[in-house]
Amino acid sequence: DPKLKIFALNSNKPLAEKIAAEIGVELGKSSVKRFSDGEIQINIEESIRGDDIYLVQSTSNPVNDNLMELLIMIDALRRASAHTISVVIPYYGYARQDRKARSREPITAKLVANMLERSGATRVLALDLHAAQIQGFFDIPVDHLMGAPLLADYFIRNNYVGEDTVVVSPDHGGVTRARKLAEFLKAPIAIIDKRRPRPNVSEVMNIVGNVKGKRAIIIDDMIDTAGTITLAAAALKQEGATEVVVAATHAIFSGPAVERLTNSVIEKVVVTDSIQLPPDKQMDKLEIVSVGPLLGQAITRIQENQPVSPLFENRFK
Amino acid sequence: DPKLKIFALNSNKPLAEKIAAEIGVELGKSSVKRFSDGEIQINIEESIRGDDIYLVQSTSNPVNDNLMELLIMIDALRRASAHTISVVIPYYGYARQDRKARSREPITAKLVANMLERSGATRVLALDLHAAQIQGFFDIPVDHLMGAPLLADYFIRNNYVGEDTVVVSPDHGGVTRARKLAEFLKAPIAIIDKRRPRPNVSEVMNIVGNVKGKRAIIIDDMIDTAGTITLAAAALKQEGATEVVVAATHAIFSGPAVERLTNSVIEKVVVTDSIQLPPDKQMDKLEIVSVGPLLGQAITRIQENQPVSPLFENRFK
Ligand SMILES: Nc1ncnc2c1ncn2[C@@H]1O[C@H](COP(=O)(O)O)[C@@H](O)[C@H]1O
Ligand SMILES: Nc1ncnc2c1ncn2[C@@H]1O[C@H](COP(=O)(O)O)[C@@H](O)[C@H]1O
Repeated sequence: DPKLKIFALNSNKPLAEKIAAEIGVELGKSSVKRFSDGEIQINIEESIRGDDIYLVQSTSNPVNDNLMELLIMIDALRRASAHTISVVIPYYGYARQDRKARSREPITAKLVANMLERSGATRVLALDLHAAQIQGFFDIPVDHLMGAPLLADYFIRNNYVGEDTVVVSPDHGGVTRARKLAEFLKAPIAIIDKRRPRPNVSEVMNIVGNVKGKRAIIIDDMIDTAGTITLAAAALKQEGATEVVVAATHAIFSGPAVERLTNSVIEKVVVTDSIQLPPDKQMDKLEIVSVGPLLGQAITRIQENQPVSPLFENRFK
Repeated sequence: DPKLKIFALNSNKPLAEKIAAEIGVELGKSSVKRFSDGEIQINIEESIRGDDIYLVQSTSNPVNDNLMELLIMIDALRRASAHTISVVIPYYGYARQDRKARSREPITAKLVANMLERSGATRVLALDLHAAQIQGFFDIPVDHLMGAPLLADYFIRNNYVGEDTVVVSPDHGGVTRARKLAEFLKAPIAIIDKRRPRPNVSEVMNIVGNVKGKRAIIIDDMIDTAGTITLAAAALKQEGATEVVVAATHAIFSGPAVERLTNSVIEKVVVTDSIQLPPDKQMDKLEIVSVGPLLGQAITRIQENQPVSPLFENRFK
C-alpha cells in the first residue's frame, strides 16, 4: 500500500503539525528557503517514491509567495514519483476573484485552480471556500470541509443557544452559513441588508429579523479589514442586541482589522487557525478554534476511502 | 487587421515605455494594484477585443509577485477576447532551476513555462535565457533574442577591439556567448577553469588562454551576487591583464553584489536594462545599454511576419 505522508510548507506549520499529530505521523522532511535573489529553493529530504502525499499550505498573505511555494513543491513531488499529491488548502487565497464582476477582470480563483492541476495536484482539500462554485473550477476531486460545526462547538460550550441567541448573516450571500450555525444552536437568524460601493469599504446597514434583547453572533467566512463586521456589530447594538460576538473561519486581519476589532463593540472574535496569525494580530477578545483535528480526520477518511461529509454534517444529530 | 498593443506590468515600466516608443505607440491603459490583504488587483482600462497584445514583464525580484502579475494579466486579457497574447520577458526568473541537479528537485523554469501556457500566452519573447533549452519547455513559439550585439556595440564604440582585447568566459558553460562577443570585437578568447582541489577548500581559478597585457572583458548572462565575477577579475589581473571590465545582460545584483563590484578591480560593469535597478543599486562604474529598441524592433518584425534573427545575427557583417 502507498504510504501516507504529510508535508508542510511555510504558511502554517503549526496547523500542519496538528494535522500530523491527529493522524499519528511525523511531518515529512523538507526545507523551503530562498536563494539570494528571492527565488524559492525547495529540498525534499526523504524519498517519497510511490507515497500518498498531503501537502499543507494556506495561500494567505504573502499570497503569491505561498502559492508559488505550493506549486514548486507539487512540481518537485511529481518529479520525485509521488503516487498521489493531495493539496490541503485551509485558506484558499484569491477566492473573491471568482467571477468577472466588471469588464476585463481576471478570474484569479480559476487561474489558481488551473495552476494547481497543471503542476500535478491530484486532489484538493479545502475549507469554507468563499464560493462553493470554486469546487467546479477543478477537474480533480475536491473535498470541501466546513468550519461551522467547530464554531458551533465553541458557542454550545459557552451556552449561546436557543431563543436568547440570534445568528446574523452580514449579507445575503452568507445566509446558508448562518442558517447552518443557527440549526446547531437552535437559534433564530437575522440578515443584514447592505451594499458595498468599493472593495475594502463598507456602508449603511438594515437589519432584517429580530435582534432586540438577544445575544447576536455574526458569522462570516472571513474577516479581512473588518469594516463590514464592525459596522454590522454597531448596527446590531443600536437595534437592541445585548451582546455582539463574531465568528469566522478565516482570520485574514489585513490593514486596520485588529484596530477596528479592538475598538469595536464586539465582545469576542471566534476564528479558526486556517491562517496563522503573527503575534501583532493577537487580541484579548480573540478565541482560536483549531481545524487540525478536522483536517486530520478528513485525511484519514480519504485514505480509507470513506466519505468525509459525516465529519461536519451529522455531528450534532 | 488586429491592432498591436503594448501593456506593461510593474517590474519594468521604463523599459516598456522604450519598447512602445520604438514602435511608435502609447502603452495600453491598465492598472495593477494590491487589495488590502496583498492580493493582486488588475484593471484593463480599454477594450482589447481582437487585438494583438504584447505584455512586458521581467520576472525579477520580487519574482513571485511579478510572475503572478503576469499570469493574472494574461488570464484577464484572454477572458477579454485578445486575439493573441505575446509575453515579452526580458529577464526570465527561475531560469537556473532548469534541470534536476540533485534528487527530488523541482524544475521551476519548466513549471513557469507551463503556467504561462496554461494561463493563455500564445507566444514568448525572451532575452538571453540562462539555458537555450528553456525554449523547448514551451509548446508555443519562442523568439529568443541575444544581448551580445548590443554589448558589442558598447565595446566597439569604446574601442575594445582586436588583439589588445580578450573576451573571457567565467566558466565552460559560457564559451559560446564569449565566442560570439569575441567575433564582433575581432578579439581572442580565454576561459576560466574553476576547480575545487579538495572539499571545503575555496575554488582555484585557472586561466586557459593568454590575457597578459590585454584588456579583459568578462562576459556572463547574469550578475547575481557577483561572487564569481569579482574573483575571476582578480585572477585576470594577477595573470597580467591591464584592465578588467565585465559585461552581462541581466543585472540581478542581489545580496552583496553592489558592494563586491564597487570594491573590486573591475573598472566598468556593462549591463542591459532587462531588469530595472533601484537607485541603491546604481554605481559609478555602471553602464546601462537599453534593450528597448531591440525588443521594439523584434515586435514590429513579428507583427509583419518577418524573421527576428537578422536583428542580432547579421548586424556586424
Ligand atoms: N483580496 C481582495 N480584497 C478585497 N476585495 C476583493 C479581493 N479580491 C476580490 N475582491 C473584490 O471582492 C468582490 C467579490 O467579493 P464578494 O462579493 O464577497 O464575493 C469583487 O468585486 C472583487 O473585486
Ligand atoms: N536563484 C538562484 N540563485 C542561486 N542559485 C540558483 C538559483 N536557482 C537555481 N540555482 C542553482 O544554480 C545551479 C544551476 O546554475 P547553473 O549551473 O549556472 O545552470 C543549480 O544547482 C541550482 O540549484
